[in-house]
Amino acid sequence: MLSPSVDNLIAQLTRLPGIGTRTAQRLTFHLLQRSQEEALALADAIREVKERVRFCRECGNLTEQEVCSICEDPRRDRTVICVVEQPVDVISIERTAEFRGLYHVLGGSLSPIDGVDPGDLRIDELLQRVRAGGVTEVVLATNPNMTGEATANYLADRLRDRTRVTRLASGLPVGGDLEYADEVTLGRALSGRREM
Amino acid sequence: MLSPSVDNLIAQLTRLPGIGTRTAQRLTFHLLQRSQEEALALADAIREVKERVRFCRECGNLTEQEVCSICEDPRRDRTVICVVEQPVDVISIERTAEFRGLYHVLGGSLSPIDGVDPGDLRIDELLQRVRAGGVTEVVLATNPNMTGEATANYLADRLRDRTRVTRLASGLPVGGDLEYADEVTLGRALSGRREM
Repeated sequence: MLSPSVDNLIAQLTRLPGIGTRTAQRLTFHLLQRSQEEALALADAIREVKERVRFCRECGNLTEQEVCSICEDPRRDRTVICVVEQPVDVISIERTAEFRGLYHVLGGSLSPIDGVDPGDLRIDELLQRVRAGGVTEVVLATNPNMTGEATANYLADRLRDRTRVTRLASGLPVGGDLEYADEVTLGRALSGRREM
Repeated sequence: MLSPSVDNLIAQLTRLPGIGTRTAQRLTFHLLQRSQEEALALADAIREVKERVRFCRECGNLTEQEVCSICEDPRRDRTVICVVEQPVDVISIERTAEFRGLYHVLGGSLSPIDGVDPGDLRIDELLQRVRAGGVTEVVLATNPNMTGEATANYLADRLRDRTRVTRLASGLPVGGDLEYADEVTLGRALSGRREM
């Protein structure tokens, strides 16, 4: 409609998750109005991320080195490994400042219906890390949904003989309202109630 | 947190309108998971748009040539000019397939409070086009909001002596509900009622 390169940018933006045609149009016109340097800074940032970022050899987290900054940090507790689905989950847990151990990023969750089997995730690497010794606890922090729970159950079965296996608590979100909690969450909060 | 280039991409994405930190994170991880070619296609699309796209010499619309495809099209009616605020508005009007004339893109709307005066918009260029002769109608299609209405009033005052000046109708949106219309819109719909 406008020009081939504008149409192309709108099409490329539409391929991003959660971005429809209208949003892609708005972003495109915003980029057209920004200065050359500002718009190219975004293009360069995309290029750099793809060129520099790779997966940590140890834990599968994102890094620009061979080994990520968490695995390399001598102050981290090497006896505890927190297993997450995605690198973004590492950020969420780090933000809590409640965890000082290491991570293991699976790269997804088990979902036979989508063709994701144990061989597609970094499960062998996790078993190797545990077998290598020194790990006293594995915290399963996969998502509390169907595939995340299935993955946690599968990993618990494989790890239970070698180390202590724990799972993140389910329950009411802090600041939430009993009235608006779904039955499953409220049921979990009840069955997981703690001594005060 | 993760790596300098990931942090940089998240920061760059956050500068886009309507994109917060969470969305920027999600987009970044999506780009990391996509193939090299797919991610670089987006980077290249941004670069190309900035290198190739400029403003049409005639109407101020976006184009990759000196003159845009609408101004160049011999089938368009050269006696009618539709004045819009932004290039994206041209797309919206073209989609209706109701208009076969030419456009004039102002590049914004008059807003003294934001420091946008007549000299900051392509108003002189519009007056020149009308003065050059052959224009029998100017359709003012600026937004039906405060600054758009002010711009339309200003332009009507400057153009009325030279040509017929019209304004897009205000009224109830098609498919809308009388019950949910605001008073101003409903008032406009009433005062602009048409013979059936």
